[in-house]
Amino acid sequence: MTTDPLVVFTPSGKRGRFPVGTPVLTAARQLGVDLDSVCGGRGICSKCQITPSYGEFSKHGVTVAPDALSEWNAVEQRYDDKRGLKEGRRLGCQATVQRDVVIDVPPESQVHRQVVRKAAAVRAIEMDPATRLYMVQVDEPDMHIPTGDFERLERALREQWEIPGIRADLSLLSKLQPVLRKGKWQVTVALNKAHDDDVPRVLEIWPGLHEAGLYGLAIDLGSTTIAAHLTDLHNGEVIASSGIMNPQIRFGEDLMSRVSYSMMNPGGDKEMTRAVREAINTLAEEIAKDAGIAPELIVETVIVCNPVMHHLLLGIDPVELGQAPFALATSDSISIDAAEMDITAINTRARIYILPCIAGHVGADSAAVALSEQPGKSDDLVLIIDVGTNAEILLGDKQGVLACSSPTGPAFEGAQISSGQRAAPGAIEAIRIDPVTKEPRFRVIGSDLWSDDPAFAEAVGASGITGICGSGIIEAVAELRMAGLLDENGLMGSAEATGTPRMVAEGRTHSYLIHDSTDEGGPRITVTQGDIRAIQLAKSALYAGAQLLMDARGVDKVDRVVLAGAFGAHISNLHAMVLGMIPDAPLDKVTSAGNAAGTGARIALCNIGARAEIERMVRQINKVETAIEPKFQEHFVAANAIPHKTAPFPELAKITSLPSPNFNTGSGGGGEDGGRRRRRRG
Amino acid sequence: MTTDPLVVFTPSGKRGRFPVGTPVLTAARQLGVDLDSVCGGRGICSKCQITPSYGEFSKHGVTVAPDALSEWNAVEQRYDDKRGLKEGRRLGCQATVQRDVVIDVPPESQVHRQVVRKAAAVRAIEMDPATRLYMVQVDEPDMHIPTGDFERLERALREQWEIPGIRADLSLLSKLQPVLRKGKWQVTVALNKAHDDDVPRVLEIWPGLHEAGLYGLAIDLGSTTIAAHLTDLHNGEVIASSGIMNPQIRFGEDLMSRVSYSMMNPGGDKEMTRAVREAINTLAEEIAKDAGIAPELIVETVIVCNPVMHHLLLGIDPVELGQAPFALATSDSISIDAAEMDITAINTRARIYILPCIAGHVGADSAAVALSEQPGKSDDLVLIIDVGTNAEILLGDKQGVLACSSPTGPAFEGAQISSGQRAAPGAIEAIRIDPVTKEPRFRVIGSDLWSDDPAFAEAVGASGITGICGSGIIEAVAELRMAGLLDENGLMGSAEATGTPRMVAEGRTHSYLIHDSTDEGGPRITVTQGDIRAIQLAKSALYAGAQLLMDARGVDKVDRVVLAGAFGAHISNLHAMVLGMIPDAPLDKVTSAGNAAGTGARIALCNIGARAEIERMVRQINKVETAIEPKFQEHFVAANAIPHKTAPFPELAKITSLPSPNFNTGSGGGGEDGGRRRRRRG
Repeated sequence: MTTDPLVVFTPSGKRGRFPVGTPVLTAARQLGVDLDSVCGGRGICSKCQITPSYGEFSKHGVTVAPDALSEWNAVEQRYDDKRGLKEGRRLGCQATVQRDVVIDVPPESQVHRQVVRKAAAVRAIEMDPATRLYMVQVDEPDMHIPTGDFERLERALREQWEIPGIRADLSLLSKLQPVLRKGKWQVTVALNKAHDDDVPRVLEIWPGLHEAGLYGLAIDLGSTTIAAHLTDLHNGEVIASSGIMNPQIRFGEDLMSRVSYSMMNPGGDKEMTRAVREAINTLAEEIAKDAGIAPELIVETVIVCNPVMHHLLLGIDPVELGQAPFALATSDSISIDAAEMDITAINTRARIYILPCIAGHVGADSAAVALSEQPGKSDDLVLIIDVGTNAEILLGDKQGVLACSSPTGPAFEGAQISSGQRAAPGAIEAIRIDPVTKEPRFRVIGSDLWSDDPAFAEAVGASGITGICGSGIIEAVAELRMAGLLDENGLMGSAEATGTPRMVAEGRTHSYLIHDSTDEGGPRITVTQGDIRAIQLAKSALYAGAQLLMDARGVDKVDRVVLAGAFGAHISNLHAMVLGMIPDAPLDKVTSAGNAAGTGARIALCNIGARAEIERMVRQINKVETAIEPKFQEHFVAANAIPHKTAPFPELAKITSLPSPNFNTGSGGGGEDGGRRRRRRG
Repeated sequence: MTTDPLVVFTPSGKRGRFPVGTPVLTAARQLGVDLDSVCGGRGICSKCQITPSYGEFSKHGVTVAPDALSEWNAVEQRYDDKRGLKEGRRLGCQATVQRDVVIDVPPESQVHRQVVRKAAAVRAIEMDPATRLYMVQVDEPDMHIPTGDFERLERALREQWEIPGIRADLSLLSKLQPVLRKGKWQVTVALNKAHDDDVPRVLEIWPGLHEAGLYGLAIDLGSTTIAAHLTDLHNGEVIASSGIMNPQIRFGEDLMSRVSYSMMNPGGDKEMTRAVREAINTLAEEIAKDAGIAPELIVETVIVCNPVMHHLLLGIDPVELGQAPFALATSDSISIDAAEMDITAINTRARIYILPCIAGHVGADSAAVALSEQPGKSDDLVLIIDVGTNAEILLGDKQGVLACSSPTGPAFEGAQISSGQRAAPGAIEAIRIDPVTKEPRFRVIGSDLWSDDPAFAEAVGASGITGICGSGIIEAVAELRMAGLLDENGLMGSAEATGTPRMVAEGRTHSYLIHDSTDEGGPRITVTQGDIRAIQLAKSALYAGAQLLMDARGVDKVDRVVLAGAFGAHISNLHAMVLGMIPDAPLDKVTSAGNAAGTGARIALCNIGARAEIERMVRQINKVETAIEPKFQEHFVAANAIPHKTAPFPELAKITSLPSPNFNTGSGGGGEDGGRRRRRRG
């Protein structure tokens, strides 16, 4: 009796003995090796490519002879002629085992391949999408065993792919018969599961082998903007990204004003629901067009958003979210037909998954941040802040995670700021004020040059400067403080008090002039006392929220801070800390996670297990409700001041040791004194 | 230590000991006694009424003292004052056990009560509807445990009704919050399960206790007519019945002409789908209005129909059903949202269940007949014929069941008959022809009188006679044969040959004049040679189908015949046998089952277990495909003749012994002879 050949798969190391003539794909399946296949071994999909290794493998105790696999066959030759096979590659369904062999499964042939994010904090996404392709050979109808075509498709999937049962809606059933006949009883189906135990539903069916792929949208639905990433469901690659303004802005800039709109206007919630659904359709259409992808190939969408957007998207009046006890209509994750939500720009049978909400003020967007940043797996205590119209804050480590939301308002996004605008070309995004001359220099989105660079004027031009965005206003306020133009209470000094004509009187208060291009018909960009107040309110809310979580945890400092959100990626950590937006932490422990909510959405799109993971995770997060916590108000008031603890310029070290300036606009006396004192130092 | 009191429930006989103070409802639940409750023991729904019995019960070994249950309490008094409680009744949730007691659960307090059909062949329907009401007390929201309202509703159902999980669509979620608050956190939900293991979905929610009931529609969707029964889902009672013409008739009278329409007209199937869905909406609206039931209380619909109607209803092009191998798109049962089928006249979240199809030509209507008539449980061999535009035929007993469909065409429904009309007031439904005088007498729908009754003229009037319906034409043909006016081949004799002026020449053939009211502007009703041919074709098809099944079973006779369908209820068994529509059987073994398909639909509406039963049953039925069976054509041709074997009139006995008449219209010779011979006898 001879021994069957040994087959060793790398990189998994799985091994077993198989009779001579066993196809490599069959051996892989029996061993549970992660080797992809859509056509089920018919030699046409090419997903099961493998690379046999030849020679001595002492590690595996195997010597592989050149004839360890069957000879290159006609099916492989045809495939190679038609599409090309990489040197050394074989089709796993065609090559059969002849002798002991070591077989490498390259990453692109693995179903559960890992997708590595480009961002600094690498978190691999393992591909395990909810929707996958299966090619099957369906039995032809037989009058004597008169089962339906659908029931024979079901049997084929059971027999050829071990899928116990399927379901489909009427629109799929209505196209089933012509597609089966067009494909001569060979078809590819896209099967979707809402969760691991779900009966898969047939989302789409194509005659023969479907080669154009499957796509999904990861959507970060914000109060102000809606961002979408078109993702290849086979390899997790982002094919295209696009954004659009949330049209609900016309009903109210912030969430509470939208809730009020709904309360004051019967049917107002329905208007807002229609608006946001239409915007998502528009966005989906555009992104598919940009990427050159047929919209019906988009079979899944994952959406993350805050609770008010969540309810408005689902068609639920958000009125209960506007008042204590802030009851969500539903907090669990939602798996739903896109059509039920009037999302019709993608496949008509596409599915939508919405992450669970954490609480009435802490939504699916925070859940997505938690999924992306995994505070519950952190060894050190991490504070994660996702800054938007509401700031969502997570604090935690392996011992547990706390969450809250803080009503910062839209000031950080450039709204409610006199010269504010959203982050777009022409917006001032960074600014420095010389503590001596009090003169500003700045950078605008769209150029890497500072305004004092000789090339700046040509590159940007005076009229190419349109306003100031969120990160710009934060830097401006911090710089004003560091330049001694603003006191600890947030009061701006007069030209006399500060000694610079950049301070201009506006009624009883003073503004700082950054840029004036009115002569060229451009804007006059200033930071007003009102702007300072808006930023103070916003940053106090943010700081107070973080403080509340720290209270609940019983700590007075954190090990590291992660700033999430597009905004978080652009603000200067230093300025944020000068401003008192975030608790003190070593500067190198303050990092940006980019659009962590969007990343969380992408993870849930690419991996069905991640959905179950976040559903478990949100149940374990402890929620702190800022609106009813008496200490929130205390922290809020206490956080109103702008202490300047950090000294990026040597001069600032001296200033901080001086008594606080006093720019009392009423009498001007003391204020002028203070101003003069600093001016003398200049 | 004392022993707990013994509680015996009748009629179940279930018994157990319970501590003093246990509510009767609690004891019933713990013993698995079938005692209804919607409010869950709050004393407001009154569904749990019971009757304690007092005195000696030797059978149960119990003596029941007058104080065996707690005293009549305030809740019961309030309910009695408000709604009235029958003498001796108590509320099971209020009365508590004090001593040994025997408690009767009256039928109306049983969930699974049996509903007895009025028809002769009694088949009890046990109530176990897919949709039931549950009242719950939901926890109010708590900011510190911020679960959604839906999740708290789910928990309440789990804790108060042991329902492990629920689901709901967006339209339900959007009304959840106001209803919970309106009901002060007490609500009644209607939960529906597609099958026993299904996660129930919330179809509707009402504040407080919902007392207006739940209703369902059982729809028999025929090629020509659509009939609906509005059924109370609590007690199975039919509240109202209504019918409407199938508007698809304008696309083709019979099924194959509709399939052709779809093949010849791109989008034709969609037109027909829209038409039938609109008709169902109209019918549902009308029936709800007639019954005075709010349409949103109709939460379920069960539909039975033939395969072509099935596909057209579902929006599937029936083209494959028009050609071998007659492949159904899907053969299994369908559970679906009414909205997905555009059935919007009832509750917007209502569910539709469509029975499985047996084969490409044997549909869900046959399955419903099988569910109602249960041939597979019959001790003797039963032939069940459901006559419509297609005749569905079942043959079977405990050894097995066979099924086929036969293309009878619409002649049996009065279509394609010169004076034909559907069964409606004014239609001749029964006719007798005197074998001696050859004069007819008849009855029309809407009156019990025969036309030779002196009171007939006043009751109906000559102009109140509008045409002849299916049962009328069958009787007419059989009577013509028995009166010697028609030969074995189906040829009608001339006035000369038959000796009656009722036979009038029309071209080369002859017609029999039944009634002429043209003088009063009314119709002239005749049976033409063409009518005879149409009936011959129809009855031959029917007979040949039954014969095929008998061949397959290897028998040449059946023990009994059941005629199903509205038509089956109206035709005379004797005439059907004279005509050769059905195989010979003792006359008392030919019964009518009424609208068995409709009854099957009602059973599936009232009992979720019956759905599983028919799904199992159809898999065990052996299908015979008439269209490809060569012997069908043989049987069809052989069945064309009209032998008159039965002799209801003494004269007929003589006639049958005579040589067959010969009404050769060509020469007239032999025919006249034969005619004369009979005339002489007259």
